[in-house]
Amino acid sequence: MDYFNAPGRNHLFVPGPVNIPDQIIRAMNRNNEDYRSPAIPAMTKTLLEDVKKIFKTTTGTPFLIPTTGTGAWESALTNTLSPGDRIVSFLIGQFSLLWIDQQQRLKFNVDVVESEWGHGAKLDVLESKIASDTSHTIKAICIVHNETATGVTNDLAKVRQILDSYQHPALLIVDGVSSICALDFRMDEWGVDVAITGSQKALSLPTGIGIVVAGPKAIEASKHAKSLRVFFDWKDYLKFYQLGTYWPYTPSIHLLYGLRAALDLIFEEGLENVIARHSRLGKATRLAVEAWGLKNCTQKEEWYSDTVTAVLVPAYIDSTEIVRRAWKRNNLSLGLGLNKVAGKVFRIGHLGHLNELQLLGCLAGVEMILKDVGYPVKLGSGVAAASAYLQNTIPMIPSRI
Amino acid sequence: MDYFNAPGRNHLFVPGPVNIPDQIIRAMNRNNEDYRSPAIPAMTKTLLEDVKKIFKTTTGTPFLIPTTGTGAWESALTNTLSPGDRIVSFLIGQFSLLWIDQQQRLKFNVDVVESEWGHGAKLDVLESKIASDTSHTIKAICIVHNETATGVTNDLAKVRQILDSYQHPALLIVDGVSSICALDFRMDEWGVDVAITGSQKALSLPTGIGIVVAGPKAIEASKHAKSLRVFFDWKDYLKFYQLGTYWPYTPSIHLLYGLRAALDLIFEEGLENVIARHSRLGKATRLAVEAWGLKNCTQKEEWYSDTVTAVLVPAYIDSTEIVRRAWKRNNLSLGLGLNKVAGKVFRIGHLGHLNELQLLGCLAGVEMILKDVGYPVKLGSGVAAASAYLQNTIPMIPSRI
Amino acid sequence: MDYFNAPGRNHLFVPGPVNIPDQIIRAMNRNNEDYRSPAIPAMTKTLLEDVKKIFKTTTGTPFLIPTTGTGAWESALTNTLSPGDRIVSFLIGQFSLLWIDQQQRLKFNVDVVESEWGHGAKLDVLESKIASDTSHTIKAICIVHNETATGVTNDLAKVRQILDSYQHPALLIVDGVSSICALDFRMDEWGVDVAITGSQKALSLPTGIGIVVAGPKAIEASKHAKSLRVFFDWKDYLKFYQLGTYWPYTPSIHLLYGLRAALDLIFEEGLENVIARHSRLGKATRLAVEAWGLKNCTQKEEWYSDTVTAVLVPAYIDSTEIVRRAWKRNNLSLGLGLNKVAGKVFRIGHLGHLNELQLLGCLAGVEMILKDVGYPVKLGSGVAAASAYLQNTIPMIPSRI
Amino acid sequence: MDYFNAPGRNHLFVPGPVNIPDQIIRAMNRNNEDYRSPAIPAMTKTLLEDVKKIFKTTTGTPFLIPTTGTGAWESALTNTLSPGDRIVSFLIGQFSLLWIDQQQRLKFNVDVVESEWGHGAKLDVLESKIASDTSHTIKAICIVHNETATGVTNDLAKVRQILDSYQHPALLIVDGVSSICALDFRMDEWGVDVAITGSQKALSLPTGIGIVVAGPKAIEASKHAKSLRVFFDWKDYLKFYQLGTYWPYTPSIHLLYGLRAALDLIFEEGLENVIARHSRLGKATRLAVEAWGLKNCTQKEEWYSDTVTAVLVPAYIDSTEIVRRAWKRNNLSLGLGLNKVAGKVFRIGHLGHLNELQLLGCLAGVEMILKDVGYPVKLGSGVAAASAYLQNTIPMIPSRI
Repeated sequence: MDYFNAPGRNHLFVPGPVNIPDQIIRAMNRNNEDYRSPAIPAMTKTLLEDVKKIFKTTTGTPFLIPTTGTGAWESALTNTLSPGDRIVSFLIGQFSLLWIDQQQRLKFNVDVVESEWGHGAKLDVLESKIASDTSHTIKAICIVHNETATGVTNDLAKVRQILDSYQHPALLIVDGVSSICALDFRMDEWGVDVAITGSQKALSLPTGIGIVVAGPKAIEASKHAKSLRVFFDWKDYLKFYQLGTYWPYTPSIHLLYGLRAALDLIFEEGLENVIARHSRLGKATRLAVEAWGLKNCTQKEEWYSDTVTAVLVPAYIDSTEIVRRAWKRNNLSLGLGLNKVAGKVFRIGHLGHLNELQLLGCLAGVEMILKDVGYPVKLGSGVAAASAYLQNTIPMIPSRI
Repeated sequence: MDYFNAPGRNHLFVPGPVNIPDQIIRAMNRNNEDYRSPAIPAMTKTLLEDVKKIFKTTTGTPFLIPTTGTGAWESALTNTLSPGDRIVSFLIGQFSLLWIDQQQRLKFNVDVVESEWGHGAKLDVLESKIASDTSHTIKAICIVHNETATGVTNDLAKVRQILDSYQHPALLIVDGVSSICALDFRMDEWGVDVAITGSQKALSLPTGIGIVVAGPKAIEASKHAKSLRVFFDWKDYLKFYQLGTYWPYTPSIHLLYGLRAALDLIFEEGLENVIARHSRLGKATRLAVEAWGLKNCTQKEEWYSDTVTAVLVPAYIDSTEIVRRAWKRNNLSLGLGLNKVAGKVFRIGHLGHLNELQLLGCLAGVEMILKDVGYPVKLGSGVAAASAYLQNTIPMIPSRI
Repeated sequence: MDYFNAPGRNHLFVPGPVNIPDQIIRAMNRNNEDYRSPAIPAMTKTLLEDVKKIFKTTTGTPFLIPTTGTGAWESALTNTLSPGDRIVSFLIGQFSLLWIDQQQRLKFNVDVVESEWGHGAKLDVLESKIASDTSHTIKAICIVHNETATGVTNDLAKVRQILDSYQHPALLIVDGVSSICALDFRMDEWGVDVAITGSQKALSLPTGIGIVVAGPKAIEASKHAKSLRVFFDWKDYLKFYQLGTYWPYTPSIHLLYGLRAALDLIFEEGLENVIARHSRLGKATRLAVEAWGLKNCTQKEEWYSDTVTAVLVPAYIDSTEIVRRAWKRNNLSLGLGLNKVAGKVFRIGHLGHLNELQLLGCLAGVEMILKDVGYPVKLGSGVAAASAYLQNTIPMIPSRI
Repeated sequence: MDYFNAPGRNHLFVPGPVNIPDQIIRAMNRNNEDYRSPAIPAMTKTLLEDVKKIFKTTTGTPFLIPTTGTGAWESALTNTLSPGDRIVSFLIGQFSLLWIDQQQRLKFNVDVVESEWGHGAKLDVLESKIASDTSHTIKAICIVHNETATGVTNDLAKVRQILDSYQHPALLIVDGVSSICALDFRMDEWGVDVAITGSQKALSLPTGIGIVVAGPKAIEASKHAKSLRVFFDWKDYLKFYQLGTYWPYTPSIHLLYGLRAALDLIFEEGLENVIARHSRLGKATRLAVEAWGLKNCTQKEEWYSDTVTAVLVPAYIDSTEIVRRAWKRNNLSLGLGLNKVAGKVFRIGHLGHLNELQLLGCLAGVEMILKDVGYPVKLGSGVAAASAYLQNTIPMIPSRI
């Protein structure tokens, strides 16, 4: 296992799993406990209440399922839909692709709206489908808020507006895996019916909790949905919520304590400050990419993602080699290009509990690797562009003034 | 959160989640890592190989699914069976009951063989069903190796013998959640087709990995099973095993490192020594119960469980009050009686990384609580009986001689 | 290093270093920090204030020296005394012996008052010395509050009373290493001029902080004491206290955070409750020893220690073998007999963050080992005696009612 | 305590205490143990052997004293010298100043050779003193290998050569606190008689072990030295080394396990590789300073330190403000200018378990802060200079190829 050791810290800049703050590592450093003691339900109650705040919902019901984002997807779908139900789903990158694959294997009737990778969801196509669906055959719209493979953020407010303008009752099911707690996300205001995220993303925990929040329409739908499910069934959770013991089966004690610490950190910094921090780090990263003379995989500014930047490399460079060397040479973990963009992009994740100097160290590393693989980058150029921007926007750390 | 503090250690004697050894807590005390770096697949490979050893299989294929035992059940069923398939399932306590509930909700045709709680599975009934099923309508036998609610261990070798004597091709699907790595379990020898366990049981980890091992017949069946599944689908795992990257979606880095440490500890002590230790602690617990003048919920010696003992209390005592006081007064976590035996039994879990003095401390605590709720126990009697037995059977700790 | 692993927990019952509560282990699980940042002085200020509370002093000045108890002794002596100064010191066991050895090597003129081991300090001899010392040649009285080698607690109130009744100005210097925070200790009320303890004792931290609290008379004496010292010199601390940066040289960040957690735990439980808990556990241990038919090394009840019990074994048994087997066979750490009582006593430490069931587990282990070495103990007898007493005295854990 | 939280990691670039690698944090994450069990001496034996390797001595005797560097100084002096002994000592910065203060307070006759701060020790003055000291009144030469306050490394080989060329028997006592394990240090080859370091420096542990290694001449001197000492007395250690129990008083179990992990990491990377890494990081830092148009406090290249760089700022800037803002604004911990250079320099520590990208992140932060306080730095310039150098010198991480 000596494999893993290298001097100094690993620079973890994949778009998840992300760096875990020391406070969370400490909170999880413990023995197991009996989850049927009075202590665990007491803590669970606070977690459920506080999770709603980060989804910006007062009417939603949260489920903390011992699973991953893939399981959270499945929980969102099987609890609200029945096999054969028509859904509109947007294919814009590898993660929306995988979700669509899941939708199809679960036997929904998926109406796929495809974009070129690097583009956002085609909302004009959605509008025409909704406009023409006067008989309401479309049961749900499935959309990723932020496509992690290409660094594209979709406009959810616009989706809601389309549905509303046609008074279409389709459920709006949102994958917020790489957005919630990092990008501006407003479950109630945007009328999102089911939203999901994973613990290893902006919450900065280990993998292991799939967080699903269901709005009232989704809860209602779950009473009639015919998809088979047991492990992912909300019904069992709701029963134990009623009993006040909260858990239909064994939760991870460690992740509950970790989530408690994660939420405390977010509230301490302030959710809006957290989002603003991601916005600054995202912008700084894009300025560095520009300074290097490289292109963002994301094709329009309106889609720029503040949690991950996918960087296009020239045809004579294999982006896989960049990722490989970064890890081997500089203990820097970057994201690979996936599927259609394999070899063409590498990704810099900038979400979670990160600060300016961590990002600048990463950018300095990327510069060295770019040069190393033969790209004529001017060393320091990206760092200069990013820090010039950050220079003027970093607030003093509030608690330290 | 001050709720949780009490002087000294919590004495965790529920039958899961169990005590986590310090070595494992240390191994999990870390940041996230990129699971696509070369390091994680290298470690995963060793985990998959070593997990097979604790199931005693050379032909099985292990899946380390980010889920709980409930999810592992679902994975075992949906990958091998199709809705409508007839299965024989034994109802002998709360956990077999929940599994049967799952089987029914997944639309299998469940032939339930019920025993009184405290009794083992009725294998004579199985034999007659198998004998008469000459057309092989029974597709699977589902059985818990150890029913955690009543402390009953079933005879799996006997099940295999019945199937073999009629050359019946039904799959043998075994819940080994509270047995594997603590009781004698032999996947290959007993012809178990799918066996499952959970990380928070004898492996002494946090909750979060559902371990499923599928034998060749089960893998073959998975190619034809029509139950819908995505998150739990073995196919995706097998595809990534082939690629050498191992993970179709994000695993918990922490649990992988923890599992590595857990396996190392088991191999260091020796799997047979681990099993023998559980046997000694189980026997010592039963001797204490006998010395207290109480009855074991398990009705025959052949079914006695070495991982959990369910203790019947006299009618004038509410066993729930025993569990409540143990926690409040002595920081001792015992298991509640569940469902049909609620109020009638309390449970002492004695599985995982435990030693003699921990058990004796627990027994001393139970004695005080029993007296406290009005049962005329002679203080010290159970400890005396248990320690007299342990006195003659505890080996010196091998590595320390 | 595989040497150390054995199944289950180590049962740590030496009288220091003691078990560290999980809360403290967590608090220390961190990176280094710059001790010149504003954060560390802010925390240090709270520590100094709160340490005074556990010494029950409002007028004392605490020093948190990066050293052990031996260093704390040296700091107490060299800051207040000059070579050649006459001091009265009581030899009642191994730790008072070591302190006297230090006093002599530091060239004080030590007037040793020796007791048989197992007896308390001869305060009548002190009285006659004080009575006859009308010219005040005696500059200090050095006394251990609790002699860890024999389990003897001295009566400090009586010492003060003797000094006061003759209006003798000698400094009263107290080793409270195995008493403070576990036994009743009242610095101001008893007119203690210098009191010391170590972090690895009742505070339940790792070794590494020698805590010295100096009263006003001692601080005054430090201005004139001619013993050479630099590392242990209070003057440097006082200078940095004045500056508000607190540390003349680098402290252990980890132990500061650990001490913060330790103090929080003590205040949460309540210092008087902590002392009462030690009293109960001490009494329970002595009842077990009596039930085994063994003698306490401590010869009179008035000297019984509530933090450590030294147990005399019959002449045909080597107590060293008991300690050796306890560790090898049961992962139980007991204290050896030291020097004059080597081979004759073994020691059970019962101080720090311990509870009833931990102690009962230890007692059950001692019973097995006693039998193992040929002593005709009745198994369960000590546990029965101890638990009968504890049964009636254990309060419900307050925060859990 | 909310004071301490800020998003992302603290960037710890003070020249000690330094960043603790995760492997060491994990190793220390544990309960106390009985240091008189067979396990701790077994581990201690390996530590003492391995510590000699990092001092490059086969003939030295190491002492792992529970203290800080200040205490290690005192141990080195009091064990080898008697009050009144003449020593030659070099004053070149704050830490040599503090050591000289200690030497004077311990009543040695200190012959101070002062240099301007930023200059190395005046070895020509030493030579003339040695040359004229034909009666060998000089008992010891005390010199810091690396002055942490000014970033000046002295030439120890030259000191040895001077002593040898006059066959002068004075002891050579070296403070290697910020050098050993980071800079080239050769105890035997350079004839160093006593060398010391502290755990919180290049070993990357918490504060708490003062490591003193004494050569044969020093051990011999300790038998005759008349300075009073007990806590720091080597004699007590040597007695317990003989007994095989190793510890005259309680060590920190945590730091022993931590030291084991620290040594393992150093040997895994290779001591020469560790030193080469420090050399690269030191050079890169100096190139950045040059690119910023700032001066190194160290006045000649031959004295440049590879563990800390003291940077002079223009007169119109207060370097204290740089350090203050770095911490408040960027969670970056830099070293203050001390005493004579207070307000004039800030220090970048680059020792311990650090890598290239961590340093580049720090440099990017310094650039922003410099601009922030009004210095006309070109953002990115230092990073560019440093990374251009590192680009050509970073080896692939050996274990990863």
